[in-house]
Amino acid sequence: MPDEQVRVTFEPHGRAVYVLPGTKIIEAGGRAGMTLDSPCGGAGTCGKCRVQVTRGAGDPTLADRKHFSKEELREGWRLACQTAVGGPAVVRIPETSLFAGKHQILAERQKGKAQEVLPAVRKVYVELSPPTLADGDADLLRLEKKLGKVKADIGLLRQLPSLLRDSDFKGTAVLADHHLIDFERGDTTAQCYGAAFDIGTTTLVGSLLDLRTGEELAIASRVNPQVSFGDDVLSRIQHAGTSPEGLIQLHRLITEALREMIDELCREAGISRDRIYELSFAGNTTMQHLLCALDPTQLGRVPFVPIHGHGLMMASADINISIHRRGAAYVFPVIGGFVGGDTVAGILATRLTEQEGPILLVDIGTNGEIVLCHKGGMLAASTAAGPAFEGARISCGMRAAGGAIEKVLLDGDVHWGTIGGTGPIGLCGSGLIDLAAELLKAGIVSPQGRLLGPDELPPGLPAALRRRVTVDSGGQTRFIIADGADVERPVAVTQRDIRELQLAGGAIRAGIAILLRQAGVKTTELKRVLIAGGFGSFIRRSNAQRIGLLPRQIDHQRIQYVGNASLNGAKWALLSTEARKRAEDLARAARHVELSQDPQFQAEFAEAMIFPE
Amino acid sequence: MPDEQVRVTFEPHGRAVYVLPGTKIIEAGGRAGMTLDSPCGGAGTCGKCRVQVTRGAGDPTLADRKHFSKEELREGWRLACQTAVGGPAVVRIPETSLFAGKHQILAERQKGKAQEVLPAVRKVYVELSPPTLADGDADLLRLEKKLGKVKADIGLLRQLPSLLRDSDFKGTAVLADHHLIDFERGDTTAQCYGAAFDIGTTTLVGSLLDLRTGEELAIASRVNPQVSFGDDVLSRIQHAGTSPEGLIQLHRLITEALREMIDELCREAGISRDRIYELSFAGNTTMQHLLCALDPTQLGRVPFVPIHGHGLMMASADINISIHRRGAAYVFPVIGGFVGGDTVAGILATRLTEQEGPILLVDIGTNGEIVLCHKGGMLAASTAAGPAFEGARISCGMRAAGGAIEKVLLDGDVHWGTIGGTGPIGLCGSGLIDLAAELLKAGIVSPQGRLLGPDELPPGLPAALRRRVTVDSGGQTRFIIADGADVERPVAVTQRDIRELQLAGGAIRAGIAILLRQAGVKTTELKRVLIAGGFGSFIRRSNAQRIGLLPRQIDHQRIQYVGNASLNGAKWALLSTEARKRAEDLARAARHVELSQDPQFQAEFAEAMIFPE
Repeated sequence: MPDEQVRVTFEPHGRAVYVLPGTKIIEAGGRAGMTLDSPCGGAGTCGKCRVQVTRGAGDPTLADRKHFSKEELREGWRLACQTAVGGPAVVRIPETSLFAGKHQILAERQKGKAQEVLPAVRKVYVELSPPTLADGDADLLRLEKKLGKVKADIGLLRQLPSLLRDSDFKGTAVLADHHLIDFERGDTTAQCYGAAFDIGTTTLVGSLLDLRTGEELAIASRVNPQVSFGDDVLSRIQHAGTSPEGLIQLHRLITEALREMIDELCREAGISRDRIYELSFAGNTTMQHLLCALDPTQLGRVPFVPIHGHGLMMASADINISIHRRGAAYVFPVIGGFVGGDTVAGILATRLTEQEGPILLVDIGTNGEIVLCHKGGMLAASTAAGPAFEGARISCGMRAAGGAIEKVLLDGDVHWGTIGGTGPIGLCGSGLIDLAAELLKAGIVSPQGRLLGPDELPPGLPAALRRRVTVDSGGQTRFIIADGADVERPVAVTQRDIRELQLAGGAIRAGIAILLRQAGVKTTELKRVLIAGGFGSFIRRSNAQRIGLLPRQIDHQRIQYVGNASLNGAKWALLSTEARKRAEDLARAARHVELSQDPQFQAEFAEAMIFPE
Repeated sequence: MPDEQVRVTFEPHGRAVYVLPGTKIIEAGGRAGMTLDSPCGGAGTCGKCRVQVTRGAGDPTLADRKHFSKEELREGWRLACQTAVGGPAVVRIPETSLFAGKHQILAERQKGKAQEVLPAVRKVYVELSPPTLADGDADLLRLEKKLGKVKADIGLLRQLPSLLRDSDFKGTAVLADHHLIDFERGDTTAQCYGAAFDIGTTTLVGSLLDLRTGEELAIASRVNPQVSFGDDVLSRIQHAGTSPEGLIQLHRLITEALREMIDELCREAGISRDRIYELSFAGNTTMQHLLCALDPTQLGRVPFVPIHGHGLMMASADINISIHRRGAAYVFPVIGGFVGGDTVAGILATRLTEQEGPILLVDIGTNGEIVLCHKGGMLAASTAAGPAFEGARISCGMRAAGGAIEKVLLDGDVHWGTIGGTGPIGLCGSGLIDLAAELLKAGIVSPQGRLLGPDELPPGLPAALRRRVTVDSGGQTRFIIADGADVERPVAVTQRDIRELQLAGGAIRAGIAILLRQAGVKTTELKRVLIAGGFGSFIRRSNAQRIGLLPRQIDHQRIQYVGNASLNGAKWALLSTEARKRAEDLARAARHVELSQDPQFQAEFAEAMIFPE
């Protein structure tokens, strides 16, 4: 039963999402890709998630009254973690309320580290005096008198005389990390862009940034087309190794997709792709290898050795992605064969090492990456969760895109909301978690994960729900979420889907258990758990605990959703060379824990497969 | 009349030259490409040019007795500037007696600058422990634990896993300026080569060096094939500008020649070209532009602006020269549009700025480059001498190669010696200077440069000489140097040849005069004049003064031939990154004097055209 969803529009970006009435603004923001800062875990105490509801503001809560003046309350200021959406609303999110937003970089700049937090790419408009007999300096020296010493590759030097003369010696020098990469006619300083990517096994997400202001101009996402060769990293590694063309084929697939995404980002922002000067990429070790056409064979064999550890800088042309002709590409450092640049980017973006520990970062994707910071040390592990949270291997699964059911409630009948507020097409990760949790609560799924048959359902179950449990032609039990006239194809979960979810959640929770044990940390001692991932939108913490993805012993206010931390880290790296140095240090400081080598992993995994009572 | 020449063999290289009896060893060494150090100008006082005559040693001179013990004299030790060749001889030149030899670099290393004077390219043999589960470091990190932090381009990273595993993790890391460019199976540290080139308008000279020891393994030279598009820089610039293909055509010609020379060097030394890891190039600004496929158009227009000032580092592949697949190429910094990297290399190799001034460096080639060091300042100018000194534009001219008459004496008749001691084919620069000086002394050429006709010859002239002056079918007077049965084709000079020589010498002397005047230095104040060039072999100073190439007011002991200083500088740059830094400083410290802008240049030139009385 679809509930009437309401539209919430976020300013200044103008992005809109449809949510069920009663949804907290912080959650709606998360769905719109804007993760609000909330160190108190949504308790309404820290006052960080300040937003201004400029249309459709309801009555302020007690917490709002504590944090805002009367004047402010009148202007619509509210705490996003406290205020629920009642009807259509327009919400302005100040930059300072965003988690891992550019304000944190700007704040750092104010600490006197101005130089270090600049992006690698910068533009300088210069007006040079044309050469004369009395001043016959070489073209590049003439420029250097304005810019300071720069490096210029031979390709640019071959063009430099005409670039300078065609622009009457007035133009914009484009510098990337002290390399002069172009001299553009006239003043183009206002057009200086970069794109950051999270390269997931299943999902690719890209963000176009204004390198001058740090502003995000567009986002794009799509399924990693390599899934046609298998939905986990091992099958990709195997394919790359089957023939000399295998690696090239996978490399081509991803780079073609990235080119298309860049086109899409450019169209959305109305910019030209040759004004994009740098790219940054964070992905797991295998994805980064395939992106760079590095043979991942060793990643598929004991002892799972990657080729590079440090971050990589190369020409974007080296990976066949055309932005500016001399554009650069940065690829994150990796921790080990299965803990890659996405994890490093996540640690960077969440400032994990600077927070009070013990603290856990759980990045949920096709692999679940888990990082524990404790007493100055950092343990990192990866667990093969499978792509269930990204909608793959789930009969009606889909990635978090328009039409995906991403929130489910059982209350007499099924209530659901889709991304974009359209008719339901399938079920994304967060919807699946909600659904499983609700089915457990309703007793339709047993703690062992069995979807009960129509004859086994608990006696008190409302008829509306009862009739949704059916057996398909193959004899498999399924639960129908949406069907009827307004639904193109019925959306349902099957017994097999529930099993996939158990495997995925179990793998992550077993990983958490092993890591905590190795560090000698009790679950209850955890100060915070940060949940990252682009798998759905805003994860509902209690539901994640209900299905055993996260330990139940943790107070849910200590759990915070931090959005796509990998992408956030990639954005930071684009905006700050200092962040890249920090990423380098973080990658080397982390100790890689090989979960499969822990004698208790199998036992933990088996136990974690069972839904908690 | 050819005199019987004698063979002098130099150890340890084994190079042999043929010289007329009476030739000083220092001169014979110069012809073999080994310039001996002689700060005293050959006066026998400084004792720097020590050599050991192991076969054919004559009686020691007075100076020898002063500089060596009896024991040493018995062992054949002599001063090369004092000892004349009497018959066939074998001479060992210690490294310490060479001008701009590797010992000077080694000496610097002893001053505690060990790090700074190493070549950019170095090899390190390492044995790595293969990865295990307990030690699963990335391949590159594993290497870095042995090498320190290195950069590796994506091309190498793509090969690294198989390079390491195919060699069982035991191999030789090749580093170029902190870039890892290869990992070679087994211990190849003994094979580490580089090649240095002097890129002249008319002549190309290359030298293959062992980068580990600094030893020169082979030399090669040939005519710059671009001469087919004109024998001076301006005609090359024009050709490059005529069509979009012009530049590419000239670039191709030079790089093809360089590739062939590298093949020749490799054959001679018996090494593989993929063990050459770096190249260095010194040439005039136009030649360097054409080498790098940089459009030289602006060099042909007022105000003659080059594209680059600083030295350039690029991949050898960027200029289409294949050595090691990731080999590098270094191109010297330039001072200005007409004073290029060859001059900087010459200043570097002669340590011009560190010597007592005022001191002059004159590099004689198709352009004559002149540098004056005085009171901490440095003036540099270039003058279009034309290719006469390299044998071009001279009817029987040829470059300094086997069969070239490179020394001439008139003494009753003509006596001459050829390079290699073979029959004469033509006349190279030093032979032309000798001949003109001798013809002047004999009164066969007038101070105005007129080659007297058969009827105008001075009365006392020996008949043997008299009959050599003839008039050819075109009515042009000529002097026949060699003809007869043992000569394939007669070798002669014509009136036009003498005119070419006047132009060439006059341009250089006028340049010297202007530079001295601008600095307020009198000719007689010059402490030393260093003559550089690959135009012949050992220049005879008094003859150079006789034809007005060098001012007569300078005591000839203050004049020193320093060989191909440009090539020597290129060699230094290959052996020492510190030398490259110094080259950078020198290029920026020099002030470029545009001779054509001096109001007195034309008058000076006209005056210098006349041979001195």
